[in-house]
Parts: sequence; C-alpha cells; structure tokens
Amino acid sequence: MEYTIRESSGLSHRDDIAELAGRQHLIVDSGAAHHGRELARRLAERGIVHRVYPVRGGEGCKTLPELQRLCDEIQLRAQRRDLVVVVGGGAVTDLARCVAAWLWKGMPLAIVPTTPTAYVDAGIGVKGAVNRDDRKNSIGVYYPPLLVALDLGLLRGCPADVLRAGLMEVMKMALIDGGRFWELYERSSPGLLATGFQGPDALPVTRAAITSMLGHLQPNLREHELSRPVDLGHLLVGPLEMRALLPHGLAVGIDLALMLEYAAVLGLLAEDERDRAQDTIRAVGAPLCHELLTPELVQGAIEDTRRQRDGVLNLPVPERIGTVRVHPHVDGAAMREAVLRLRVRGLGASTVAVDTASATTARSTVPAGRAGSRPGRSPAQHGRQCQPTRPARPADNEQSDGPQW
Amino acid sequence: MEYTIRESSGLSHRDDIAELAGRQHLIVDSGAAHHGRELARRLAERGIVHRVYPVRGGEGCKTLPELQRLCDEIQLRAQRRDLVVVVGGGAVTDLARCVAAWLWKGMPLAIVPTTPTAYVDAGIGVKGAVNRDDRKNSIGVYYPPLLVALDLGLLRGCPADVLRAGLMEVMKMALIDGGRFWELYERSSPGLLATGFQGPDALPVTRAAITSMLGHLQPNLREHELSRPVDLGHLLVGPLEMRALLPHGLAVGIDLALMLEYAAVLGLLAEDERDRAQDTIRAVGAPLCHELLTPELVQGAIEDTRRQRDGVLNLPVPERIGTVRVHPHVDGAAMREAVLRLRVRGLGASTVAVDTASATTARSTVPAGRAGSRPGRSPAQHGRQCQPTRPARPADNEQSDGPQW
Repeated sequence: MEYTIRESSGLSHRDDIAELAGRQHLIVDSGAAHHGRELARRLAERGIVHRVYPVRGGEGCKTLPELQRLCDEIQLRAQRRDLVVVVGGGAVTDLARCVAAWLWKGMPLAIVPTTPTAYVDAGIGVKGAVNRDDRKNSIGVYYPPLLVALDLGLLRGCPADVLRAGLMEVMKMALIDGGRFWELYERSSPGLLATGFQGPDALPVTRAAITSMLGHLQPNLREHELSRPVDLGHLLVGPLEMRALLPHGLAVGIDLALMLEYAAVLGLLAEDERDRAQDTIRAVGAPLCHELLTPELVQGAIEDTRRQRDGVLNLPVPERIGTVRVHPHVDGAAMREAVLRLRVRGLGASTVAVDTASATTARSTVPAGRAGSRPGRSPAQHGRQCQPTRPARPADNEQSDGPQW
Repeated sequence: MEYTIRESSGLSHRDDIAELAGRQHLIVDSGAAHHGRELARRLAERGIVHRVYPVRGGEGCKTLPELQRLCDEIQLRAQRRDLVVVVGGGAVTDLARCVAAWLWKGMPLAIVPTTPTAYVDAGIGVKGAVNRDDRKNSIGVYYPPLLVALDLGLLRGCPADVLRAGLMEVMKMALIDGGRFWELYERSSPGLLATGFQGPDALPVTRAAITSMLGHLQPNLREHELSRPVDLGHLLVGPLEMRALLPHGLAVGIDLALMLEYAAVLGLLAEDERDRAQDTIRAVGAPLCHELLTPELVQGAIEDTRRQRDGVLNLPVPERIGTVRVHPHVDGAAMREAVLRLRVRGLGASTVAVDTASATTARSTVPAGRAGSRPGRSPAQHGRQCQPTRPARPADNEQSDGPQW
C-alpha cells in the first residue's frame, strides 16, 4: 500500500490534483465551500470535467443514508476510474473515503484536508468509517488515497474550536513522542490557535505530528496489531462525541486529561508532569472534562473498546511525557478515582451521583446535552440517574466467554 | 491475498470451521436453515460460542438497510476478531462478505456455499456487494475469506431453478475454456440438474469450473484490469435481475444466449456452434430469452456497463466454443439484430415494439414483471412503450467527455 502526501500551497494554482484524472467528483464540506470553489475553478481552467457534491460537515454526516445519497449522486454520472476528491474536515474525509472505497468496489481518491484534525490525523491515514447511533466508526474500511494534498493555508479561518480540536490530536502525538516535539508543541500551541496555524511554527509542528503518526501507522496500516500507542486519547471519543456532541478533537483532549490523571493515580506519572501536560490543554482553551464524564460512562466505553480490540482492552497510558505504554487491562478503582479527580479539576465538581450497584454493568445513562437534537432523547439531566436510552446489550467481557451470548 | 478453498463433506463432522475461532456469528440464508442448524450443532459440540442470524435469501437481501440490520445485530455481541460465517447462496454470500469486510473495518470470514452459483462463482472469489434500485452491485468490496468450505452434499435439494442458475455459471466457464471441460459440461449438465449435483460428474465439473475461474481471478483479484473474459454473460444481469426479477444465473444464461447470437450475426461464430451452445441452455430447461429483453434494455445495459468499465465497454464475445475475446466496443446494429433473432428463437415472437427515435439514449422502460413487488411501479406492460420509471441520467458515453456533465 503506497500513497503520496504532498505539502504545497494555493489550490488556485496547484495542479497535482488536476493531473490525477480527467473526470473528477468533488465531495466538499459545507465548512470549506470556498476551498471547493477554488479547486473547481482550477480544474475548469485545466479542462477537467468535474462536479461538486456538498456535504454538511461534522460527525453527523457519517451515516449510511448520507453515504448512500452521495453514492447515488456520484454513480449517476461517474465512470469507474473517475477521481473522487474530498475537500473538508475529518468527518467528511472519513465519509468520503467510504464512498470512494465502496462505489464499484473502489474509485481513486484524493484528499484535501481543510481542518487541523484532517490535516494531521484523519486525512493522512487509510481509515474511513461511518457511525451508527452511539457506535462511532462502527463500520468502515482501510482504503489508501492516491494523494493527500496538504496546504496549511486552507486552515486559515477555521473556527477556534476546530483549531483546538486539531491541537488535541497534535498534543496526543507530542505526548507519545516527547522530547523536542513535546517542547515545541507546548511552546507553540497557543500561537497556533491564535494564528489559525498560519505562523512560522505551524509547518514544523504539523510535520512532526504527521511524521510521528506515519511512523506508527506504516507497519500496521490495517491494524493487524490491536495494541497501538496512537489509540491514546481515544477510549472515550465514542460516547463523548455521540452523546455530548463534542468535536472529535475536544473529546480526545478530555480523554488525554483523564489518562494523565489515571497514570498519576497509578503512581506511574509524576504529578508535575501531569500538571504540565494538562496545562497545555487549558492553555488553548480546550476543556479538561465534561459533565457527562462519569465512572459509568468510562465503564461503558471500556466494555465497548474491549470488544472492538477483540477482548483485550489494550489501553495506552502516558507513563511519562514521551513514554506511552499499552496496558492490557484497566485498574477499575484507579480509573474511577481518576474520573472523580478530573471532575474536581476540570469542572470544580466535588461529587458525582453514582449508582454503585450498577457501576460495573450499566452504561452511562445521561442523555446528550443538546436538547432536542436527537429525536426520542430527553434534554440533559446532569448528575441524575435515569433509565437507559438504548436497548440492553448482553453482558460481555473478557472473563465471561461462556457458550451463550 | 491468500485464502483456502477446501472440499469436504458433512457439516455435522467437519471441524475446519470450528477451528478458525472460538466465537462465531453465523449468517444463514433462509433457504439453507437446515444447514445452518447442522453447523451450529457441530460448533456447540466443539464448545464454540456462536449465534445464528437468519437472512431471507435472494437478490432482494442485498441492500444497505439489510446490511445495517445485520451489522447492528452482530456488533451488539461481537468482538473484533470473532469469525463471521455465511451459510447460503450467492446473494447472501455477497451481502455477508460486505458485513464482514465493513464491521470494525473487517472481521474474519468463512463461506459455506449452499447453491451451485455460490459454490462455483460467488463464494470462491473475493467480491461482495449490495444493490441500489436498478444498479446491481453498485457498492461493494474486495474481501478475501479465511476459508471457503465446499461441500457438494449441501446442494442436495436445491430447487430446480437454483440448480439451473448455477449450471449457467458453469456453462460460462465451459464456453470460455472449451475442449474437454465443454464436452464434459455438455454431456453431464442434464444429469447434474436431475441429481442436484449429487451424481459422479458433479465433482469433476465443479472442479473444472472453479479451477478455471480461479485461474482468471488470481492475477486480477481486484480488477485492476477491466478487460475480463469472465465477464462473459454479465452484460444484462443488472436489468434482467433487477427488473425481470430473474435469478442471477438464469439472467446469465439469457445473456450467454444473446452473446452467442451476437457473435453469429457478426459472422465470428459458426451457426452450428451457436446452436450447439444454445442447445445446452435448453437442455436444462433454462430460458434463452425474456420478454423484457429488448434492444433498448440492451442499450441501457451497454451504457451502464461502459461507465462501470471506465468508459470502454470491454465486451467478452464467444468467437468459438473455447475462444472468448474481449471486444472494446459493440456493433450496435449487429447487437440489435441479435436481440431480435434471439426473441424469435427464444420467445417465438417475430416483432418487438421499438421506439427507434429513443433507442440510443432511452433506458428500457418496461417495468418489472411481478406486479406490486416494487412500490411505485405499475404492472408489466410487455411490448408497450411507457414513461421511464427512474430519474433521467445525463447522457454520458465514451465520445462525449465534454467539460460539463
């Protein structure tokens, strides 16, 4: 599996995309419509037959019906080896990768990231996916693009939370790598936020993040090995995104804060290193915690993640800045303590209502915080226990492989 | 890409499936429920945790909603490396391959074919797909199984049309190979139908078909090369299956009959060879033609296939028994003549109503023949021209690559 990642600048004069195919289908994130138009103009100048398919960006676009809609529209006009180009953030690149991978069993793909998260993470790997209810990325594909066309200029003007989200993905890689990359990140992240990745640090920081990520992905592109340090910060992203409706990167930031806390509770991470790392999250105005982050939510995420990692949790833990070790199992009491400490630290809350009897089996039962945004769900009732809002799932963990489900 | 195809007999005592994984999810075709139960019993005896997910067989199951339903049910209980086992005919193996390929970006898969079509064709390759309206296999995947567990005994009791459908796929390979395989097929096919593939010829015939098919697939598993002799007989399968609701293999038989006629009209195939080959279709009681097979339907199929093969039709033509050559383009007048001749030969019809003005752009407009089976469609009105039942598609062929779609 081989593909090209190329840094350049200015969609209005870059021609490496035009040169890939004479017929192109542009899936364009609503948040990046102006970049889509710029690319379309350049393709028109080069005589490339093309069409734009707008998609409303954000995690909500990653559904099978939206995938079907795009497939329908593209297949109405496409030939099998036409190029699919996606211009957008991580959610849209995830969706478009599935579209390209599945239409006629695979059309060529080019990716133009327009958010920091897509630029350093979603756009440069080979994974695409759609969600189902609470199950983030429940179905998906490994599918390499022909080209990832990087251009830091496209990040100009991203909303602050979109920038923060991307910074959290960069922070994850800096925590894993440590050393000079960590120092550079720590020093430059407030400036990256302030300038929208347009300052002099943007190129070295993003290059470091991408180089490190590719180093981890390259030997394990299809995840034959499920023990992956780069899964750091991705235990809680499913429930935090799907229920709290947080942008992916902000969920990663909260998850990182919790893992730092967990490592400190275990006595692995020194408290000053924990503070130093958590301070970088605060320094860019990203949240350390969320009301919905409870021991039950974490327990549910652990169960889901364990099944997703084939029965063994494989939890990456930052034992030092620059040293992330994958723990096969979790220390439940320490994790619970870490959640409670992080709530105090991040929310100023000193207590959280917990039904201890159900703590090991129940999923978090607090509904999403944006009232009415999901049909059939009641508005948030923070700190109160209420009935589960999804069908019961049979208990299933690594200790209970009986003959029945 | 490597996988195992193993002939054996008796699900009640074969253990190669049990040995693949300690946790298994069995997707079972409604037409093969008894085989599913037999396998489940054997797995239970071996202490394998398993569960059965029934699917109503036939082309109608190949939809995204059905795929989503199966993914939901399996993911409720599964771990990432659990085995998905499909027990069924070609439509269900196509669907289940997508389920296995897409759940968590890929779960291990084993295939147990229970119809001749799945046994010699759908089950032994790497392609899975679902349909969308008239577009057969519009989205799909290349995904190898771990194991294809072949057992001729499972074909016992298949309905006659299911046997005929499989025979047409065998005939395709025999036409491509010619020689002793063709002679064996010609001689044994009525007996294969009569015995349900349980006689002494079943093993050599199916082995010849599979060996030949694998020889064609092996160097081109992902269809990088779109000029494929094994696409013989697959020009019309989309419209014939999706509109005439014919089983895949019977549509292949009609398509083969048409290609034999076309080759004869072109003067490439001797009439006695055409007759000899068409006689083998008649000899097993499979249809040579269908009321919906009109020059317009063929024209629509040509346009769709051309886009699917990236702008060049690549039409396999049987120039002799044993010599199939892929023609880049089609001779429209000869094809039209072939359709009219085949209608006379296969239906006894001497005329067909054709709106010549629209013959080159309109899609076939005769709705499906099973009244009420598709909401929003009127019952069949054979031989009458009526309004198109799907949205207009922009004209698009290899001569018109203008800058606009």
